[in-house]
Amino acid sequence: MSILIKNVLLNEEETDIYIEGNLIEKIEKNINYKADNFIDGKNKAIIPSFVNSHTHAAMTLLRGYADDMQVKEWLEKKIWPLEAKLSEEDIYWGAKFACLEMIKSGTTLFNDMYWHFHGTAKAVEEMGIRAIISSVIIDFFDEKKLKEQIEINKRLFEEAKQYSKRITFALGPHSIYSNSEEALRWAKKFADENKLLIHIHLSESKNEVEECIKKYKMRPAEFLESIKFLGPNVIAAHSIWLDEKEIKILRKNDVKIAYNPTSNMKLSSGILPYEKLKSAGLTLTLGTDGCASNNNLDMLEEMKFASLLQKINTGNPTSALAKDIFNMATINGAEALRINCGKIEERRLADFLLIDLKNIYLNPQSNLISNLVYSANSECIDSTICDGKILMQNRKVKGEEDIVKKINEIYKKLI
Amino acid sequence: MSILIKNVLLNEEETDIYIEGNLIEKIEKNINYKADNFIDGKNKAIIPSFVNSHTHAAMTLLRGYADDMQVKEWLEKKIWPLEAKLSEEDIYWGAKFACLEMIKSGTTLFNDMYWHFHGTAKAVEEMGIRAIISSVIIDFFDEKKLKEQIEINKRLFEEAKQYSKRITFALGPHSIYSNSEEALRWAKKFADENKLLIHIHLSESKNEVEECIKKYKMRPAEFLESIKFLGPNVIAAHSIWLDEKEIKILRKNDVKIAYNPTSNMKLSSGILPYEKLKSAGLTLTLGTDGCASNNNLDMLEEMKFASLLQKINTGNPTSALAKDIFNMATINGAEALRINCGKIEERRLADFLLIDLKNIYLNPQSNLISNLVYSANSECIDSTICDGKILMQNRKVKGEEDIVKKINEIYKKLI
Repeated sequence: MSILIKNVLLNEEETDIYIEGNLIEKIEKNINYKADNFIDGKNKAIIPSFVNSHTHAAMTLLRGYADDMQVKEWLEKKIWPLEAKLSEEDIYWGAKFACLEMIKSGTTLFNDMYWHFHGTAKAVEEMGIRAIISSVIIDFFDEKKLKEQIEINKRLFEEAKQYSKRITFALGPHSIYSNSEEALRWAKKFADENKLLIHIHLSESKNEVEECIKKYKMRPAEFLESIKFLGPNVIAAHSIWLDEKEIKILRKNDVKIAYNPTSNMKLSSGILPYEKLKSAGLTLTLGTDGCASNNNLDMLEEMKFASLLQKINTGNPTSALAKDIFNMATINGAEALRINCGKIEERRLADFLLIDLKNIYLNPQSNLISNLVYSANSECIDSTICDGKILMQNRKVKGEEDIVKKINEIYKKLI
Repeated sequence: MSILIKNVLLNEEETDIYIEGNLIEKIEKNINYKADNFIDGKNKAIIPSFVNSHTHAAMTLLRGYADDMQVKEWLEKKIWPLEAKLSEEDIYWGAKFACLEMIKSGTTLFNDMYWHFHGTAKAVEEMGIRAIISSVIIDFFDEKKLKEQIEINKRLFEEAKQYSKRITFALGPHSIYSNSEEALRWAKKFADENKLLIHIHLSESKNEVEECIKKYKMRPAEFLESIKFLGPNVIAAHSIWLDEKEIKILRKNDVKIAYNPTSNMKLSSGILPYEKLKSAGLTLTLGTDGCASNNNLDMLEEMKFASLLQKINTGNPTSALAKDIFNMATINGAEALRINCGKIEERRLADFLLIDLKNIYLNPQSNLISNLVYSANSECIDSTICDGKILMQNRKVKGEEDIVKKINEIYKKLI
């Protein structure tokens, strides 16, 4: 399979791009190879597709189900009871719907943590995008539960090998407050032995930090450092309530940070110390979190929230520059998740978007990155390509209507 | 002209709606009138179109031109020099482009303040939506300039009568720091004598308040009260840096507040004291501000920012409920601007949207208002109707390509 794109805008210049298999093979003017697919790139720009570094994909099923509530009540009375009812089949459809939304809003790689691994994995496999998928590890300080979790994760690690390379198994210890020290130590050890990523929630709420200090006489990052949990394979979602010492610890261990501005605002969690983390040299990535707290998986929107939340928080409108936020949403995420995408260059994976430059939100054609971060919405994305395959063209994705119909049936059954 | 819409969702029930001329004539099941236009409302919801209570429409021309800058430098080196070059023709096209964007994102009434009144008025007239348009009054404490401004505004008030009822002339004294007391007094007097609205920027920046205290020994709202400027016909944009006493003054005078969260975040201006203003009983409306500081005119996006900024600011996720924010963006704006729209009911103006319920962002169909505020983007809007006329159907607006082309020519000439 090959694709030839003629006269597409890349970094303010028109060029041709040739895709062979799942790689960007050649970028230069006047390519005249024969290709299986031809795309006229006129009035289109090519940009890397987005990387969503923290989400719970199947929670699309819960969009709009419970909003404007206090977090404790929201979780205990609404989210957890409904999640308890979810079958693998439900999660399969929820994740398919999430993939559909991601394709339509330009994301082709996401870092997921949820129940029923195979539900999500099957959905991603069929929809054609990439995901790092972890099964939620929660032992609630119970030895028996930990044993079960270890068994499940060892089994899933093996079973995940049945899927294509687009699907990567990871460890998902939910948080320090829902897991014993043993669970965290086991996750870290298993991840390191098998070269796996680890996905964890870190210091999302102030309360979480206070509980940790009470219990371990240390702040969360200090505690994780003390049990040698931290490392470059750890993706720490939220990472809001960090002090200077913790930031140094995270930097020293090259932990990857997932910033989730929309969710953090909606749940009143707090604000990522972006400038401090950035000047410490940490790798910052961007994620939407799940649809119950966002309520969508739209990385274009997330970029705007990401920048504007920092500008209002610091009182400095030069904080969180459009280009830095765009990098967080693309190359930084790709590097954190160890996938060779996130940039348009030869020998990178052919994971990219064709942007409709005639869309009102991108005009006048002043500054494409600014317009993408501060003005665009998903309607500006004409085509989504992942692994060298065209998943959306002219905003059409195969099977969209059936998926929407199915998730409404599931929703009605659940509530 | 008449329109019959069959089986459309209104407040969770299917109904038929009959439009005669520019009014919603009948709302009930099984209407069997003959109509000039028939619309199948199946899989669509009807909602009032949005009211943008504070913008500078033609600034669409400056979208993406200057972002991520300190406000003083941004204004002095970028925005003002470029604005100085704008002709009436430029503003006509900029405003046409703004109207196009508004139609595509569901706004059919906006409150504008900008130069070259007729440029904006002609654009609105042709595009078919409604606007309250004021010419910027700035006298910079110069008597000669004030005289000129008075002449211009008296003339424009007369000349504005040539336009249809969709266009309303208003007074636009820019702010207290750019106008003498005499200018403000004149604007108020002229507005009251002629039953006009007044559009002013109030306490957008902290600095503005400090300057006012230095100069007048009073805070801005106190100063405006002291010169009898305030009243129910005043729309005060931003209204961020208000103390308790000022909030009481604004309430006593029934001043209408325009909340501009996206602009306030992007320029690091500050945060509207939403809860205090709301519990004081003030009419709160929602506006995007201009495209240089937003960078779009999208009220769906603005609603999400409006709610989430309050939730993170107050630390309370039950602040700024979806339904209250939706009302700000519709009926409250309509009431503040004194136009009989903003609600779907008989004898209201036929200004409304048909929402595509099959769009991914509105599914599962859990809670339409939540999904509109927290998840939707403009692609969810199928049709925009204003004054009984269909301005967009199936997301197509007549003349879109020509307008986009033209504003790029103007942009290239300007920079």
